Amino acid sequence: MTNRDVKLPADLKFDAAGLIPCIVQDSDTGRVIMFAWMNAESIEMTIKTGETHFWSRSRAELWHKGVTSGNTQTLISLEFDCDMDALLVRVKPSGPACHTGLESCFDSGRVELGPA
Amino acid sequence: MTNRDVKLPADLKFDAAGLIPCIVQDSDTGRVIMFAWMNAESIEMTIKTGETHFWSRSRAELWHKGVTSGNTQTLISLEFDCDMDALLVRVKPSGPACHTGLESCFDSGRVELGPA
Repeated sequence: MTNRDVKLPADLKFDAAGLIPCIVQDSDTGRVIMFAWMNAESIEMTIKTGETHFWSRSRAELWHKGVTSGNTQTLISLEFDCDMDALLVRVKPSGPACHTGLESCFDSGRVELGPA
Repeated sequence: MTNRDVKLPADLKFDAAGLIPCIVQDSDTGRVIMFAWMNAESIEMTIKTGETHFWSRSRAELWHKGVTSGNTQTLISLEFDCDMDALLVRVKPSGPACHTGLESCFDSGRVELGPA
């Protein structure tokens, strides 16, 4: 558990539910491993502890990723986009990101493209 | 202009506004270059034409990325996540993704992390 100072940009834009979309990328492989939502508290907890925290919309609670499965994600960097309404966190995962056991939640499927 | 068959999974989940979050990644560099929203029509147009189309929430219209700037994005793959409620498209961009001229919208800023 680290204890970093939190310096969030004041003009970060949250939606009507107080949430901001968050893309999670493996900092070593570059693979996008999940997409989730953060609120102000989960951003602060992520930075303070150095491990990703999200807001679970289905459970309506703060969610420390990996606290049950052991597959935590160590924060490497946190970036925001030009509109200040989306986050990109790069992490070192300690195990598969997906509850299915796959490395990435996006390993679940792809749209088959017909001939161009 | 290609003319692919569209085979969307029937159980793709759109939000109340008919939108699904879409992560755009440069297929060569692995850099996440933007985050945007798609609706069913923009997904179909992306697959049919082979160039990304989004739904512009601010302008409330279908948005063919790069049609004005020339910075189109050629579709390489389209994946969806385990919950079927987020998309990852990998593209070959023909220019900067960001309206600021930066390669990635996420080059705009990052939260400075204090000492761990």
